[in-house]
Amino acid sequence: MLAQGSLEFRISHRCPTTRARVGEIATPHGTFDTPAFMPVGTQGSVKSLAPEDLEDAGARIILANTYHLYLRPGHGLIKRLGGLHRFMSWSGSILTDSGGFQVYSLAGLRKISEEGVTFQSHLDGSRHFIGPEEAIEIQESLGADIIMAFDECAPYPSDYDYVLNSVKLTSLWARRCVEKKKNESQALFGIIQGGMYDDLREMSARDLTGMDFDGYAIGGLSVGEDKQTRDRVIKNTRDFIPDDKPVYLMGVGAPEDLVEAVMLGVDMFDCVMPTRNARNGTLFTATGRVNIKNVRYADDEGPVEKGCRCYTCCRFSQAYLRHLFMARELLAYRLNTIHNIYYYIHLMEEMRQAIEEDRFDNYRHYFYELQKKG
Amino acid sequence: MLAQGSLEFRISHRCPTTRARVGEIATPHGTFDTPAFMPVGTQGSVKSLAPEDLEDAGARIILANTYHLYLRPGHGLIKRLGGLHRFMSWSGSILTDSGGFQVYSLAGLRKISEEGVTFQSHLDGSRHFIGPEEAIEIQESLGADIIMAFDECAPYPSDYDYVLNSVKLTSLWARRCVEKKKNESQALFGIIQGGMYDDLREMSARDLTGMDFDGYAIGGLSVGEDKQTRDRVIKNTRDFIPDDKPVYLMGVGAPEDLVEAVMLGVDMFDCVMPTRNARNGTLFTATGRVNIKNVRYADDEGPVEKGCRCYTCCRFSQAYLRHLFMARELLAYRLNTIHNIYYYIHLMEEMRQAIEEDRFDNYRHYFYELQKKG
Repeated sequence: MLAQGSLEFRISHRCPTTRARVGEIATPHGTFDTPAFMPVGTQGSVKSLAPEDLEDAGARIILANTYHLYLRPGHGLIKRLGGLHRFMSWSGSILTDSGGFQVYSLAGLRKISEEGVTFQSHLDGSRHFIGPEEAIEIQESLGADIIMAFDECAPYPSDYDYVLNSVKLTSLWARRCVEKKKNESQALFGIIQGGMYDDLREMSARDLTGMDFDGYAIGGLSVGEDKQTRDRVIKNTRDFIPDDKPVYLMGVGAPEDLVEAVMLGVDMFDCVMPTRNARNGTLFTATGRVNIKNVRYADDEGPVEKGCRCYTCCRFSQAYLRHLFMARELLAYRLNTIHNIYYYIHLMEEMRQAIEEDRFDNYRHYFYELQKKG
Repeated sequence: MLAQGSLEFRISHRCPTTRARVGEIATPHGTFDTPAFMPVGTQGSVKSLAPEDLEDAGARIILANTYHLYLRPGHGLIKRLGGLHRFMSWSGSILTDSGGFQVYSLAGLRKISEEGVTFQSHLDGSRHFIGPEEAIEIQESLGADIIMAFDECAPYPSDYDYVLNSVKLTSLWARRCVEKKKNESQALFGIIQGGMYDDLREMSARDLTGMDFDGYAIGGLSVGEDKQTRDRVIKNTRDFIPDDKPVYLMGVGAPEDLVEAVMLGVDMFDCVMPTRNARNGTLFTATGRVNIKNVRYADDEGPVEKGCRCYTCCRFSQAYLRHLFMARELLAYRLNTIHNIYYYIHLMEEMRQAIEEDRFDNYRHYFYELQKKG
C-alpha cells in the first residue's frame, strides 16, 4: 500500500555546483517556494504572532506539534471546530510532526513497545498511549496539509544495537502509518532515523523510500551531535532519498546550518531558534546576532538591521526595543519575533534567488563573510 | 502667570437632560472626540499592543506614566531620541500624568516636604526626588501633548487635616508648575484633590481654576471609596470647573463608571482596567464580562461578542482564545487586549452618538439592561 498524498513538488532550478535546488510545493492551502523555512507554532500559535504577522513576514507554511495539541486542547476538539487551519485562523499550509520527538524529549516515564509508546503528559502527569495508528488519527483530526509518520527518535548518543532496533521499529511503524492513513487531501512524509551510523541511516532510508512517501524527513538530528557529524549524516542520508521528493530536515537550525543543508539538497526546515531567541532578546542579522539587552543599544536610533523591511525594523529603534525588553513589555516579544521570522524567511528567499541565478556558491561565501562582520 | 497650552476644546453638543456633552480636543498630534477614553501605556507601550493595534481600535490619545518613564529608560534618553511620540512610534496624542499618583502608590520610603517628594524606586530602591519643577521638566522632555501638574494624592481614608494640608500643597505645587512650564506646544492640566471632603474639593477646585489651566482633572478617586461616595465627589467637584474646559477623571474605571461620569460632565478618562483585565482573561461585552478561562467556552465557535468589529472578534473563536489563554500563549494577551480596548473606545463612541442624538438617558438605561443579560 502506498501513501496517497495531494502534494505536488516541482523542481524549477538546480545549482550547477552543489545539490541545492529551487522548487515549489503545492498543498490544498496554497503553494510555497523551496527551500522553505516553517516557523514553529507548537500549540497552534507561533509564539506572540498573529496570522497576519506570519503572512507579512512571508511565511506560507508553519509547523504545529501533534503532541502538544493532542494534550491541549485535544485533537477531537480541533476536529469538531473544523480543523487546525480554521481553529487558528491560518489560511496557509500546515505541517504537523508525528509527536514522536516530543514524546521522547518532553513526556515522562516513556515505555516503548512494538505497539507504540506509553507516556506521561508533561502538563499533568496523566498517562497516554500513542502508536502509529493514533499518530495518524490525531493528525487526520488536526487536518494539516503535510503529516508525518510516527517514528522513534533515538537518544544521542545511543549504541549501535539500540539504534538498529529503533530503525526497525520506525520502519514497522512507518508501514502501519501508510496503511492507516485515509485522508487523501493530506500528504504523508516518512522520517528517516539511524542516529549517527551511516549504514543505519542507509537502512532506514531504503526501508522508507520503498514505501513511496510524499516526502522524506531526516529526523534524529540537532540532538547534541557536533556540526561535522550532522553535516556528514545529512549528506549521506540525502544520497538515498529519491531526487524528485521533497527533503525535510527536522528541527535544524541556526542560519549557517540552513545554508549548509540547502547546499546538501534539503528543501524544508523548521526550528524554534528564531522564535525562542527572539523571546530571549537575541536578534538575527546578516552581520551576526544582536543581543538587544546590551547597553550599547540604549541610545541607538537605528533599526536592528539597516535595510531590513520587516515591520519591526521599519518602525522601531533598537533603543525602543531594548527598553521594551528590559521593561519586560509584552510587545518586545512580538516585535523581536517578527524580525527573526522575517530574517529566516528572507534568508531562504535570498538562497532561492542565488540558486536560480547560479551563484549559490558565491552567496554562501558572502554569507559567512558578512556574518563575521557583526 | 497663566498656563499657555496649545490645546483647543470645542463643545459641539450638550445633552438636554444631563451634564453630558460631546466635543473635540485638538492637540499638535491630532484631534480626538470627547468623551474620550485613553488606553494606558505605562512604560511607553500599551501592554501587548503595537501602535497599529491602537489605531485600528480607534484610539487617538493614550496615557503614559511619567514616574515609570523617568525611572526607565529615563526622560533624558527619550528627549535625546526625539521625544516619546517618536520613541514609541505613536503619531496620535499623548497625555503624561504628573508622577504624583505612582510616587504614592508604588515607590518606597516617601518623604513629602513643601519642596517635593523624596522616594525610593520600586525597581532598584535607588533614591530620587521629584517636585513640581522636576515633574514639569520630565514631562517637557517626554513631550506629551497634555501634561499634568504635580499633585499630592492623599491616601484613603485620610482625616480632614491631612487632606486639607494636601490640598494646600497641591495648590502650591500647581502654581509652581504653571510658573515652570515653558513649552507652549504642550497643554497643562491641574489636578483637583480634596479626598472625599466636599468643602476641600471645592477649595481645591477654586484654587486651581484661579490659575486658568487648559483643563482640569479630578484626582484622588478610585482609591478604595464606595461608588456612591465617588459619584458624589465627581458631581460636586464638577460644579466648580468652568464649563468650557475639558474635565478628566483620572484612573476611573469600569464601563458603568464611565457611563455615570459622562452623565456628570466628564470628558476624558484613563484606566488600566481594559488592559489588565485582558491579561487576566476577563473580556468586556455589552452583555457583561466574559471569563475566557471558563470551560463553557472550550467548544464555542462564536466570537467574544457577536457583532463586535474588533480584529479579535472578526478572526477568532472563544474556543481558540480560551485555548491560547490556558496554554499561556503570548498571543492571548494581545488578542484579549485588542478586544477590551475596542470595547472601551466603542463604548465612548456609542455614548457620543447618543448624546448627539439627544437620547443619552435612554442609552444609559439600555446599557444597564444589556449588562444584566450576561
